[in-house]
Amino acid sequence: MNLKGIFKILNYVVGIEGVFLLLPALVGVIFRQYHAALVYFAVAAVCIVVAALFIFIQRHDPTKRGFYGKEGFVATALSWFILSLIGAVPMYLTGDIPNYVDALFESTSGYTTTGASVIPDLSVISLPTIFFRSFTHWIGGMGVLVFILAILPMSGGSPLSIMKAESPGPSVSKMVPKLQRTAMISYGLYIALTVLEFVLLLFDPDMPVFENICHTMGTAGTGGFSVTNSGPAGYSPYVKVVTTVFMMLFGANFSFYFLLITKKFRDAFGLEEIRWYVGIFLGAVLMIFLNLHFSGFDARENLLGIFYSCASLMTTTGYTIVDFGKWPVFTHVVLMTLMFVGGCAGSTGGGFKVSRIMLMLKQVGKEVRQQIHPNQVYSIRVDKKPVSADVLKSCNIVFISYVMILIASCLLVSLDDFDFTTTFSGVLATYDNIGVGFGKVCVGGCFNIFSWHSKLVMVLDMIAGRLEILPVLLLFHPATWKK
Amino acid sequence: MNLKGIFKILNYVVGIEGVFLLLPALVGVIFRQYHAALVYFAVAAVCIVVAALFIFIQRHDPTKRGFYGKEGFVATALSWFILSLIGAVPMYLTGDIPNYVDALFESTSGYTTTGASVIPDLSVISLPTIFFRSFTHWIGGMGVLVFILAILPMSGGSPLSIMKAESPGPSVSKMVPKLQRTAMISYGLYIALTVLEFVLLLFDPDMPVFENICHTMGTAGTGGFSVTNSGPAGYSPYVKVVTTVFMMLFGANFSFYFLLITKKFRDAFGLEEIRWYVGIFLGAVLMIFLNLHFSGFDARENLLGIFYSCASLMTTTGYTIVDFGKWPVFTHVVLMTLMFVGGCAGSTGGGFKVSRIMLMLKQVGKEVRQQIHPNQVYSIRVDKKPVSADVLKSCNIVFISYVMILIASCLLVSLDDFDFTTTFSGVLATYDNIGVGFGKVCVGGCFNIFSWHSKLVMVLDMIAGRLEILPVLLLFHPATWKK
Repeated sequence: MNLKGIFKILNYVVGIEGVFLLLPALVGVIFRQYHAALVYFAVAAVCIVVAALFIFIQRHDPTKRGFYGKEGFVATALSWFILSLIGAVPMYLTGDIPNYVDALFESTSGYTTTGASVIPDLSVISLPTIFFRSFTHWIGGMGVLVFILAILPMSGGSPLSIMKAESPGPSVSKMVPKLQRTAMISYGLYIALTVLEFVLLLFDPDMPVFENICHTMGTAGTGGFSVTNSGPAGYSPYVKVVTTVFMMLFGANFSFYFLLITKKFRDAFGLEEIRWYVGIFLGAVLMIFLNLHFSGFDARENLLGIFYSCASLMTTTGYTIVDFGKWPVFTHVVLMTLMFVGGCAGSTGGGFKVSRIMLMLKQVGKEVRQQIHPNQVYSIRVDKKPVSADVLKSCNIVFISYVMILIASCLLVSLDDFDFTTTFSGVLATYDNIGVGFGKVCVGGCFNIFSWHSKLVMVLDMIAGRLEILPVLLLFHPATWKK
Repeated sequence: MNLKGIFKILNYVVGIEGVFLLLPALVGVIFRQYHAALVYFAVAAVCIVVAALFIFIQRHDPTKRGFYGKEGFVATALSWFILSLIGAVPMYLTGDIPNYVDALFESTSGYTTTGASVIPDLSVISLPTIFFRSFTHWIGGMGVLVFILAILPMSGGSPLSIMKAESPGPSVSKMVPKLQRTAMISYGLYIALTVLEFVLLLFDPDMPVFENICHTMGTAGTGGFSVTNSGPAGYSPYVKVVTTVFMMLFGANFSFYFLLITKKFRDAFGLEEIRWYVGIFLGAVLMIFLNLHFSGFDARENLLGIFYSCASLMTTTGYTIVDFGKWPVFTHVVLMTLMFVGGCAGSTGGGFKVSRIMLMLKQVGKEVRQQIHPNQVYSIRVDKKPVSADVLKSCNIVFISYVMILIASCLLVSLDDFDFTTTFSGVLATYDNIGVGFGKVCVGGCFNIFSWHSKLVMVLDMIAGRLEILPVLLLFHPATWKK
């Protein structure tokens, strides 16, 4: 185990988080909330000084041993825990969240782009904290280590395992052969799309710029923290339409945009995952529309709400503009299925990922055909390329561990003795990084109903969900830490 | 496709069902319910005559082509649909169940050992029907085709695929190399255990012999149909204890008993699946006991109820003696997990099977260890023998299709607009062949609340669950039927 290498990464992470924390401090200064600004600044300063100190001490340490496989996974998992633990400190110290476990839940929910909140009343929260919550969504969406990877050259070894651990999906979609350039392109596209949404939202004169920034970052990271108590429901139809479109854009595989800007239009629109993604989305919209129509609801009046809700839950953003809790149960099952499916690989969305669903269904189809024609040889192809057995195996293993952890988490959270719907969809909402569910968790700000131990289970679930399980399993496996 | 071979099998199935139907007719004569007896006799006669006719016609047909893979799967799936369709006829014609779809649900629920019932009041049902329902449990438990296999020599080809399709678990556990002898030994053990339970229950003077026979068959097949309105809760503690023990015995891998009677005690008690089975069961009992104790229930008074419920739901029998709907939600999640796990492979129990859970967890463990030590070669072993990649793959594919069909069924059943708990556990109760659930389906006799289309979905689910999906997928795949 290359402990020194891991320690180095963690130092960078702490340092970067220090830099991040300067932004809410700045927000505090702008809005004259000096107390909160001071807290954020102090925590930022400590992070930066400590990180700089250790980086200085370690500067002559020639880490000759490479940085492979498990080290990357463990470093990533540890980084996310440390990010969340430190991010909770200023929220706690400002007094915005008077309980550290709650603050940890909120901070983890931010970085993992979950958007589940323990804050029942946003009007008493300082603006630096409001800003910081949304900012963690934006950072968490594309990944902190991918960010570090994009701006710092990694010495020794291959950082592929870090990229693997932090990028969602069954395999790293390398847009270009060089990993650092892939990271840079990803962040470039991410920033461009974010700025585009911000600019489009500027056209709504009623939306304050501060709310625009926070709302845009929440959409970009497919996070879902609200900025005000009225939440996204309070914005104009224009803002809702723009948000719907951008949720879907951020939930799509970023390879799509790369192919578009490199003018490979045929390849871009041929991407199977994108087709499935759009197909599943439209199918869900249609099913809910018809169900509402035949259940005595005014489906046409709800049309924007249907599109918005499907986009929000499928991309695991978790913004809500309608109370779908009042819709028929069929729509809940459709929405839960979307929550489970999630966004595309290589997007900022959570969930199980469209490409994995695709791979799994193709495996079943192949098995059935194989049984019918035992002597023919079938292979599983995506975008006309055969999928390696390793990718399939790892997809299946993620699925198995996913369900097992889901069951275990439901067991632990059910100790709080809420009804089954609340328990199940509360776990699903955090594990799939969505932030809203059904039953008593049908709005984002009500996760304070759970006990502190359920919240800790959900903290683990959120990080396990964001990193797609394996890094977290490795982190807690005793054999990882044996000499 | 060897259509003639399949047709031959189906003829045997219809003929055997005719013979089965003579038993309820006899019950009708004994209890002087002549109308019902006549109906059962008439249907039996038609079945036997039609089957005999076709068998006579086909007698000189030399089926030279073998009977492999898909033919076995398709024949098995078709057989189960035909069994259920015919079994529903006398229930409908006697007027016991005045709606054919309801009768089909009841008959399928019987053969697949589900035990979900649409009959709200058993006191108005004729005794032949009461007997027949329990008898279908007994037949369905070990399998109709395995029964045919045990008594008839199969000409040409290998009947392994039939055995595979009908025997639960990831692989056929052949006790002896010859398949027909394996089938005979299975049925021999099954009959012996059934008789043993019957004899033990005779010691309760308050239990009528007729109820004893029906209750024993329901336990043996891990079915769960009640015989009277008061159900198993009305019996003495002695009967409840015996039932608990026998539910667990019938949910265990029958290889265990074969090893015991051949005096291979070390092998028998070394069987990993048996250890996991008992371990999971005791773990669940302990968790529920502690949870009840700390939730203000009298856990000691509920002790028999806890053992009984865990045994009943894990082996997917579905008998209930306590209203666990009133217990805390944690116990529901524990019980649902048991429902999902199910009994052992090579038992009469349903669910996903302990051995598959074992294989799946071992795969996750192997993957984690592999990531930690990438250069070592790990293999997955059960009972010290390595498990082939094919078995693992098929285990994963069954799991994937299992979850996909579960989601699809929930979608269809949710159109009835019951609450999520009822929808989800209603589907789980039928799909895992259990027969009881939570919410509005917490007792066995209340599946009449669902609409006819939900009932048809559940009929498909019950057969898909009993045959572990693949045969049913093959049956409905268009490519199976192409020339």
